[in-house]
Amino acid sequence: MRMWINDVRSYMPPVGIGEVMRALGLGIVTASRNPRFAVGDHVSGVFGVQEYALTDGKGVTKIDPRVVPLPKYLNVLGMTGMTAYFGLLDTGQPKPGETVVVSAAAGAVGAVVGQIAKIKNCHVVGIAGGAEKCRYIVQDLGFDAAIDYKNEDVGKRLRELCPNGIDVFFDNVGGEILDAALARLAMRGRVVICGAIARYDQKQMVGPKNYLSLLVQRGRMEGFIVLDYMPRAAEAVAELSGWLKDGRLKDRVDVVQGLENAPAALARLFKGENHGKQLVRIAEAP
Amino acid sequence: MRMWINDVRSYMPPVGIGEVMRALGLGIVTASRNPRFAVGDHVSGVFGVQEYALTDGKGVTKIDPRVVPLPKYLNVLGMTGMTAYFGLLDTGQPKPGETVVVSAAAGAVGAVVGQIAKIKNCHVVGIAGGAEKCRYIVQDLGFDAAIDYKNEDVGKRLRELCPNGIDVFFDNVGGEILDAALARLAMRGRVVICGAIARYDQKQMVGPKNYLSLLVQRGRMEGFIVLDYMPRAAEAVAELSGWLKDGRLKDRVDVVQGLENAPAALARLFKGENHGKQLVRIAEAP
Repeated sequence: MRMWINDVRSYMPPVGIGEVMRALGLGIVTASRNPRFAVGDHVSGVFGVQEYALTDGKGVTKIDPRVVPLPKYLNVLGMTGMTAYFGLLDTGQPKPGETVVVSAAAGAVGAVVGQIAKIKNCHVVGIAGGAEKCRYIVQDLGFDAAIDYKNEDVGKRLRELCPNGIDVFFDNVGGEILDAALARLAMRGRVVICGAIARYDQKQMVGPKNYLSLLVQRGRMEGFIVLDYMPRAAEAVAELSGWLKDGRLKDRVDVVQGLENAPAALARLFKGENHGKQLVRIAEAP
Repeated sequence: MRMWINDVRSYMPPVGIGEVMRALGLGIVTASRNPRFAVGDHVSGVFGVQEYALTDGKGVTKIDPRVVPLPKYLNVLGMTGMTAYFGLLDTGQPKPGETVVVSAAAGAVGAVVGQIAKIKNCHVVGIAGGAEKCRYIVQDLGFDAAIDYKNEDVGKRLRELCPNGIDVFFDNVGGEILDAALARLAMRGRVVICGAIARYDQKQMVGPKNYLSLLVQRGRMEGFIVLDYMPRAAEAVAELSGWLKDGRLKDRVDVVQGLENAPAALARLFKGENHGKQLVRIAEAP
């Protein structure tokens, strides 16, 4: 969303001034002339930040709140889960025993990335802001270790916790944390560029000054956009659902009440105030 | 060589103060107790910047000046040719019809990269400094177009010459030229990091501020070290020799006379004063 309000070329057109902010959402059908949907159906789609959305049904999916709780459709079983799943496994290609480091590790995507990496038998280190988030990813989610970037020297801690270097760095943050990880890249290490929240708000972009680690370490830095993987979504949903059911995958959502608080909810991400997937509840189920 | 005189972790140990600078060279055997080599044999190896080298024969190859002229063994048929061949084809993976852009295009590696890309039926744009080098790569080497970074706006020219974006950017330079290329990256474009001569001499490294193009364009930036490909050297030599013989691959060497001028010869690269592969002749053949 933050990138969409810049007037620059991106993977989607910007959202113009006065337009409805693009957003994934869940809703209940209140009227329908489409035979695929009946009044009362629960649905997910790109409904935008608004109370009512009009759609021809394209890209809208029926969901069942009796199978999994509704918020999970916007988190582990939604775009967040897909992002973690395909970004880590397809772009990062971690092998058992490798060291995986993830930034914004207590965030929605990061938490899923770390847990999938553990399921794949990797050594997993999460970077998060503050003691509570670090406790959460290690004690509740099962990461091997955490680095509190607000109170610790990230470079020094990466040297201690990744003695053989970083095989996969899954980056949601950019900035100094990306540079610290590049400096510890293992031979043939992979950097997955998922986001750069440290950079979106800056007027002057600063690039990763340690990018020549890619040369010295024969490394690879690669971006991906989860939308490209939508044809394979069922594959991810099947596997993620299984892990949810087994209790191997946990998630946490952070719900802000009220449509009018949506801009403030977005702003929370830039201060690291959210704990888990940031959602906005715009109405109660009837 | 410039990286080796920094006291930092790299793909090889640094060269210490007072040590002989590491260098590939050609020579003639003047004395031998190794049955593989006889007095008078022409040989190539990592002999260092010095008049006489002592070796146990490991990594030393006999060469034949009657097959190809001697300098080519240090250029197209040496590490330069291997670097261009494996960096472009293995890391860059250009497909016929794709747009390949190479920086330092009139330099030793860049000239070979561009010619191989033409042989592979790509649209090839070279970035070089000055009108003579631009003329050389287009008229003599057959590149489709050239950009004179000393006198033209690289970003603007890339937009004109690569209307569909850059599929493969082979970078020897780093700095602003890397940023300009990232800004024009095509969907699933690949950036091959071969070197960063614009950066080696700077105290403060500056990273590519447009690296998020990798995310938006699902791109990949990857480094490589030619030494990793030595087991496959014969494959490259066979193909490069064939292209040399066919006249499809041309090269140019720039010879500085005298061992005492070796440091100055290295410095020429940083001002773009060399025309083709920079060599130093330390002695005439007897």
